[in-house]
Amino acid sequence: MARTFASDNNSGAHPVALIAVAEANEEHVHAYGDDPWTARGIRALRTHVGEAADVFFVFNGTGANVTALSSLLGNGDCVITPATAHVATDECGAPERFTGCKVVGVPTADGKLRPADVEPLLSAHGNMHHVQPRVISISQISETGTVYTADEVRALADLAHANGMYLHMDGARISNAAVALDEPIRAFTTDAGVDVLSFGGTKNGLLFGEAVCFLTPGLADRYLYERKSGGQLASKMRFVGAQFAAVYGSSTWHEMAAHANAMAARLAEGARAAGVELVWEPAANEVFALLPPDAAERLRAVTDFYEWEPRGDRVIVRWVCSWDTTDEDVDRFVAAIPAVMEGRS
Amino acid sequence: MARTFASDNNSGAHPVALIAVAEANEEHVHAYGDDPWTARGIRALRTHVGEAADVFFVFNGTGANVTALSSLLGNGDCVITPATAHVATDECGAPERFTGCKVVGVPTADGKLRPADVEPLLSAHGNMHHVQPRVISISQISETGTVYTADEVRALADLAHANGMYLHMDGARISNAAVALDEPIRAFTTDAGVDVLSFGGTKNGLLFGEAVCFLTPGLADRYLYERKSGGQLASKMRFVGAQFAAVYGSSTWHEMAAHANAMAARLAEGARAAGVELVWEPAANEVFALLPPDAAERLRAVTDFYEWEPRGDRVIVRWVCSWDTTDEDVDRFVAAIPAVMEGRS
Amino acid sequence: MARTFASDNNSGAHPVALIAVAEANEEHVHAYGDDPWTARGIRALRTHVGEAADVFFVFNGTGANVTALSSLLGNGDCVITPATAHVATDECGAPERFTGCKVVGVPTADGKLRPADVEPLLSAHGNMHHVQPRVISISQISETGTVYTADEVRALADLAHANGMYLHMDGARISNAAVALDEPIRAFTTDAGVDVLSFGGTKNGLLFGEAVCFLTPGLADRYLYERKSGGQLASKMRFVGAQFAAVYGSSTWHEMAAHANAMAARLAEGARAAGVELVWEPAANEVFALLPPDAAERLRAVTDFYEWEPRGDRVIVRWVCSWDTTDEDVDRFVAAIPAVMEGRS
Amino acid sequence: MARTFASDNNSGAHPVALIAVAEANEEHVHAYGDDPWTARGIRALRTHVGEAADVFFVFNGTGANVTALSSLLGNGDCVITPATAHVATDECGAPERFTGCKVVGVPTADGKLRPADVEPLLSAHGNMHHVQPRVISISQISETGTVYTADEVRALADLAHANGMYLHMDGARISNAAVALDEPIRAFTTDAGVDVLSFGGTKNGLLFGEAVCFLTPGLADRYLYERKSGGQLASKMRFVGAQFAAVYGSSTWHEMAAHANAMAARLAEGARAAGVELVWEPAANEVFALLPPDAAERLRAVTDFYEWEPRGDRVIVRWVCSWDTTDEDVDRFVAAIPAVMEGRS
Repeated sequence: MARTFASDNNSGAHPVALIAVAEANEEHVHAYGDDPWTARGIRALRTHVGEAADVFFVFNGTGANVTALSSLLGNGDCVITPATAHVATDECGAPERFTGCKVVGVPTADGKLRPADVEPLLSAHGNMHHVQPRVISISQISETGTVYTADEVRALADLAHANGMYLHMDGARISNAAVALDEPIRAFTTDAGVDVLSFGGTKNGLLFGEAVCFLTPGLADRYLYERKSGGQLASKMRFVGAQFAAVYGSSTWHEMAAHANAMAARLAEGARAAGVELVWEPAANEVFALLPPDAAERLRAVTDFYEWEPRGDRVIVRWVCSWDTTDEDVDRFVAAIPAVMEGRS
Repeated sequence: MARTFASDNNSGAHPVALIAVAEANEEHVHAYGDDPWTARGIRALRTHVGEAADVFFVFNGTGANVTALSSLLGNGDCVITPATAHVATDECGAPERFTGCKVVGVPTADGKLRPADVEPLLSAHGNMHHVQPRVISISQISETGTVYTADEVRALADLAHANGMYLHMDGARISNAAVALDEPIRAFTTDAGVDVLSFGGTKNGLLFGEAVCFLTPGLADRYLYERKSGGQLASKMRFVGAQFAAVYGSSTWHEMAAHANAMAARLAEGARAAGVELVWEPAANEVFALLPPDAAERLRAVTDFYEWEPRGDRVIVRWVCSWDTTDEDVDRFVAAIPAVMEGRS
Repeated sequence: MARTFASDNNSGAHPVALIAVAEANEEHVHAYGDDPWTARGIRALRTHVGEAADVFFVFNGTGANVTALSSLLGNGDCVITPATAHVATDECGAPERFTGCKVVGVPTADGKLRPADVEPLLSAHGNMHHVQPRVISISQISETGTVYTADEVRALADLAHANGMYLHMDGARISNAAVALDEPIRAFTTDAGVDVLSFGGTKNGLLFGEAVCFLTPGLADRYLYERKSGGQLASKMRFVGAQFAAVYGSSTWHEMAAHANAMAARLAEGARAAGVELVWEPAANEVFALLPPDAAERLRAVTDFYEWEPRGDRVIVRWVCSWDTTDEDVDRFVAAIPAVMEGRS
Repeated sequence: MARTFASDNNSGAHPVALIAVAEANEEHVHAYGDDPWTARGIRALRTHVGEAADVFFVFNGTGANVTALSSLLGNGDCVITPATAHVATDECGAPERFTGCKVVGVPTADGKLRPADVEPLLSAHGNMHHVQPRVISISQISETGTVYTADEVRALADLAHANGMYLHMDGARISNAAVALDEPIRAFTTDAGVDVLSFGGTKNGLLFGEAVCFLTPGLADRYLYERKSGGQLASKMRFVGAQFAAVYGSSTWHEMAAHANAMAARLAEGARAAGVELVWEPAANEVFALLPPDAAERLRAVTDFYEWEPRGDRVIVRWVCSWDTTDEDVDRFVAAIPAVMEGRS
C-alpha cells in the first residue's frame, strides 16, 4: 500500500529499529526486562530525560498513558486534560477503566491547555461530592498539531504542584516536539516540571514500544506492579529495549522527527500557496486544513487522510507526515490541490 | 547469554518470525489491524481453530487472558481455575483488576482441573452472597507441564455449558500440547467445546504477540471495545499478524514445538537415568524434578532454571526447553547431574 | 436547627415513614429482603411503575444510579447525560468507579437533554477508538428544577432504542415531577419507554432508602449480584421496604411532594414580586434565582441555601423546598428580600 | 415471624436505637454528616477506640469493609484473610470489585488467622509477577464464632507492620468480642495495633449503620472521597449517628452483646448436655454444632438456623443468638434436641 497522510502509525519501522531487533535476537536472556538490551534502552532514554528518571517499557501508547495515570490517581480523583486529548477521546475509555476516575476534558482553542483553563476547576478540592483534580495531562505535540513551549509546560507544572497535583505528558510524538522547539527533550519535560512522561516510540519509527518515564523521584515505587497488573509487561522485553537503545541512543530519532516535520512544513506551505486555509499554525508533523467536503473527498482519492470534524460548511482535515514521507509524496499531493478545489478531479 | 532451562520466554524469536516482520515492513498500511498481514495471520489461525472463529491479536499472554475473561464475566461472577494457573498466581492480580471478579484457585494434584474439582463450587449459583461461577479456565499445557486430553477438555466444557458457564483455555503453550497429543489444535479446543482460547505465540518463537480466539459464535460482538479499553490494541498490528501468518501458516510452529518437546523428553530421560525423581510425568516441554536444595543450587550453576516450590526437605525445580534448545544443552546438563547430586560440584 | 432552603436532604423523615419503621421493628424476619415488609414495599412501587417491573431496594441515590448504570454497561461503553446531571458532577466519580465507563456530560440550556443533544455523539458507534454510547441518563426532575414531559422522555427513549441503547432515569425527585406534571409516575417512566429507573425516597420524606426499578423485562436477571457486589444490599431491608410500603402505598408521597412544590411556587412568586429574576421557570420544588453576590450573602443569613454557580456579575442561587417547609418559612424569607437587595440587612 | 437462630441480622432494632432515630427526626440539619447527631456518634465511638481515631459512618458491613480495604490497597496488592472470612466468601466479590485486588483466603483450623499462616505468603514481596501482600484482614469475632485475644491481634499487627503491611479488622460483631474477652474494645483494636476497623452496628441492635474507624493516624486523609465514590455516603447521616450515640454512648451496646453471648452459652451448654458435639468452643454469640443431616432438618422445624457445610456424614450447623433471644427461645430449642436426635420429631 502506498504511503498516505493518514497517520504516522501507518508507516513501518525505520531500518535502524528493525536491525536492532534482529541483533537482539540471539540466544537467551532473562525475560521481563532483566536483560542487557532493556538496560541499554533505559540508558538511552535517560540521556534525554535525566539520569534520575525511572524508565519502564510498555507495549503501546494507551498502555503508557493509563498505567502512568493510574500511578498518580486515587479513588475520587480526576484528570484534567484538553477535550481533544487522546486520553479523553481516542482510547475507548481505557483511562476510566484502568483508573476508575473521571477524565475531565476541557475545551481549548488550539488543543493546548493553559492555567486559566484549569484554575476554575480547582475549587472542587475539598468538596467530597466532586471529583478531586489530581493530574493535569497534556499531549506534546497536541492532538491539533500545536506544540507547548517549555515555559507553557512550566506554567502548568507550577499550577499543578501548587495545588497538590501532578503534570503528566502524553509524548506520543515527543520527538517531533523536540525538533519543532529545537530543544533537547529534557528542556520541556524534566526541566519544565513534568512529573510523568509517556515517551512515544511507535509513531517515530519503532515497530512497537513506548516508555513510561517517572521524572519526579519517588513516584515509581509501585509501578512494577502497576505495569504487570495492567497487562503491559512484555516477556521478551529485549526487543523493545533494543529499539530504544538503537534509535534514541543515536541521532536516528532526531533525523526521523526532523524529516517528518520538514515534510509537514513543505505540505503546509504548498497547500497555502494553493489557497488552502490552515486551522492551526503547523508546528510539527501534522497539518490541519479546512476544505469543502467534496474537495476533501476528491483529495483523499489522491492520497488518503482523515477527516477530523466538520466546521461550518467545511471540514477540518488532518495530514500527518511520517519519517518515511518523501518530497514526491508531498509534491504530488500539493500539485493535485488546485484541480481538486475547482472540482476538476 | 547462554541458553538456559529457565523459561521459553528467555529464548529469542525463530528466524521465520523475524523475517516475517522484516517482510511486513514496507510502506504504509492501515494501523490497528485493517491491513493484509493481520488478515493473513487471522486466516492462518483459523486453519487451526476453525473458519468460524473470531480471531483478534493482542500483545501478550496476560492481555489475552484478561480481555478474554472480561468478555465473559459480569459483576459478581467468578472464574474457577487450578490454584497453580497463571491467571491465579502469575499475573499480579491482573484478572481481578481487569474484571473486578474473583479468581477461585482450586488445589489439584497435577495442575489439571477435573469436573469433580468444580462441581462442589456450583452450589453457589443463585446465592447472591457468593460469587457466581461463570468461567472455568484451564491452561493447556498446564503450569505443571501436564496436558489435557481432548476428552478431558470436553468433560469440563460439558460441565460448564450444562451450568450456564464458559470454558476458557489459556493456550500460552498450546503448540506444545498439540505435539504432545499428536492431534490438530482444533481437536482439543474448538471440537472439544472450548469457548474462548488465548492462543500463545511468544513462548513458541515469536518476538511478541498472542491471539484471542472466540470459538463459540456470538461471544466476540463487543471484543473490539474490550481490547481497546483494555490497552491491548497494537497500532502497527501488521507486525503481529505477519508473524502468525508465517509461523502458523506453515509447519514452523509444529517444528518448534516438536523440537522443544523432544528436548524435554531427552532431558527427562537423562535425569531419570541419573537417579532424579520427576514430580509429574513430563508430557510437553516442561520437566519438574525433585532435588535436594543444595544440589539444585549447584545444578543451577551449570545451567540456570527456576525453583518452583519446596516439597518436604527437597525442592521442586522446573526445567523448560525451548525451540532453540540443543542436544548439547541437554546432554551437558544431564552429564553434570551425578556430580551435583553427590556434592562434587 | 431551623429549616432552610439548602436541600430536601436536610429535612427529616415524615412521621408516616418513621412510624412504619417502628411498626416493622418486631421479632425476627429473614435478612436481605426475604421478608414481608420488603414484599409490601415492592408491591407499593409496582402500583406506580407497573406490575411487570423488577424492583430492588438500595441505600441511597448514588447506589441506585451506579448499580443501575452498571447493569446496562459493558467495557468501552459510555453514558450520555446533561453536564449538570448528578451522575456527571455530584457523585465524586462513583459512576466511573463502579462501571469503568466514561460519563459524557453534554451542555444543555436548562438541564434537560434533548435528542438533538445526543444525536451527534452516536457517530461513535462502531469506532473502536471511541467510547460507545450505550445509556442515556436523565434526571427527573432535572438538577436545574425543570421537568421532562412524558413526550420528551419518550423522544429520548425512542432515540435510545433505535440505536441499541437504554434510557435510565435518575428519579431522586420523581415524586415532585409527578405532581408537577399532574400525571401518574408511570406515565412518564414505564409508559414513556424508560428502561431503568432510580426511584427516590430519601428526598421525599424517608429516613433513607431508594429503589432500582427495571421497567423493561429481562434487564434485571443479574441485578442481585450487581447490588451485593456493589455494597448496596441492606441486611435489615425490612426498614426500607416498610417505609416505601407506607409512603408509596398511600397518598403520603403525593401530599409531601405537592406541598414541597407548592412552597416552591409560593417562594418563586414572592421573589419575583420582590424583583428577583429567576433563571429557569420553576416547575417542582426547586427555584433558581439570580442575585448580586453580596445580596446572596445577606439573604443566606436569613435562611441558608446554596450558591450554584456564578453567572456574569451575579450568582445563581438554589432554593429547595421540602415536605416540611412552611408558609411562614417562605413568607419570612420573601419578606427579607427587599432589604437584602437594597443592602439594608 | 418468630425469633430464630438464623442470624443476628434477622432481629430488629433495640428500642434505644429506634428512639434515638425518632429523637433525631426534628427540623433540618446539614446533610452528609455535618450535623450534631453525627458528631455525637463519632464522639461515642471514640470513647471505645481512642480520641485520635478518624471515624466515618457508612451504610453496611460490606460497605465498611470494601471502602476500608480500598483505602489501604494499590494496584497489584492483595489482602490475606482466613478462607472463611466474610470478605473472602460472603460479599459476592465486592472486595475484588471495589479494589481490583486479589483476596487470598488462607485455610485455618478455627477461623482465626495466625502469623504462621501469613508468613509463607510474604515471599511474594518484591516479585512483580505475584500480588503483593498489603493488608491482613481478620474478623472479630471470627466467622466460626471464635475470638482473637488482644495478644493474638498484636502478633498479627506486628507481623503486618514489620512487613510494610496493615491490619484490618472486620468488627461486624465486635461488641460480642468485647464481652467475650471482658475487655474494653480498644484493648484488642487500637491498643493491639489494628490500623483500620470496620465497627459493626447492625448486628448488635441498630436499624442500619456501621462505622469505619482509622486507628492509625494519617490513613484517613482521602477517605471522604473513597466513601462518596464508593456509594456509602448517607445523606441523612444523622439517623446513623444518633443510633451510635445512643447505643455506644451508653451501656446499651454492652447489655445487648452480653445478653446475646449469655444466650449462646446457655444454648451451647444445653446442647452439649443433650449429647450434641460442638465444632469450636463457643466464645461469643455463635454456636457451631455437628448434627446428622436428618436431625438438622428436624431441628430446623423447631427453630430455624443455617446449615454451614458438610463434615463427613454430618453437617455443621450454626446457631446465632441475638440481643433479643430469650431464655425461653433457648430452652424450647434445647428441649427439642433429644427427640430430634432420636428421630422422634
